[in-house]
Amino acid sequence: MVDALLEANDAFYRAFEQADLDAMSDLWLHEDHVACTHPGWATLHGWGAVSASWVALFSGGRPMQFILTQVRPTVVGDVAWVALDENLIAGDDAHTVAAVNVFQRVGGRWRMVLHHGSGVASA
Amino acid sequence: MVDALLEANDAFYRAFEQADLDAMSDLWLHEDHVACTHPGWATLHGWGAVSASWVALFSGGRPMQFILTQVRPTVVGDVAWVALDENLIAGDDAHTVAAVNVFQRVGGRWRMVLHHGSGVASA
Repeated sequence: MVDALLEANDAFYRAFEQADLDAMSDLWLHEDHVACTHPGWATLHGWGAVSASWVALFSGGRPMQFILTQVRPTVVGDVAWVALDENLIAGDDAHTVAAVNVFQRVGGRWRMVLHHGSGVASA
Repeated sequence: MVDALLEANDAFYRAFEQADLDAMSDLWLHEDHVACTHPGWATLHGWGAVSASWVALFSGGRPMQFILTQVRPTVVGDVAWVALDENLIAGDDAHTVAAVNVFQRVGGRWRMVLHHGSGVASA
């Protein structure tokens, strides 16, 4: 159960790294209750607004690489969440984003329903 | 069901405003899988680290007032989450924090298991 959850979580970062809109769309639940908060952004509600943000981010043309650490999965019934650190490398820039990804199991598949990332201030 | 969830969510902000450690402790599940990410902070894992952060924040002596907007609750079985905007007023300073609060129903009560807040950059 946790394996399938972590695979869904990995699929999210793979889609992000590859700027793969189809994979991102396949992963997220297309419902009004999904929400996404990119670092420094206001929260986007509903799949329409969330998908538009991926279109905007992926058109930036700046490849990103994620190294995930402190990955902590929790499963409770048909909901699961993964708290983790995204260590991002984009060109010469490197920084850490604290994130939580929430998934809902629908039709036997873990589908993403919430992503919230926020920059960690340097010590 | 949503009423009880929103009451638990309100209890969180009431405890925050009143710097009430007992109320905050009563609300959170005291387990290793709870997590809390304050704006700009790294994620704290486990009730020990999370509770220590409330002690530190509440000893700051700076009263805060929250006006909550865009409150969107979702309940799936024994897990629920509330995505919302925290409009904070602390002295002369006012700013908005995008937040998600995750709750787990244990013994018929909604207990907090995750809080993640991040500052929204001014447009």
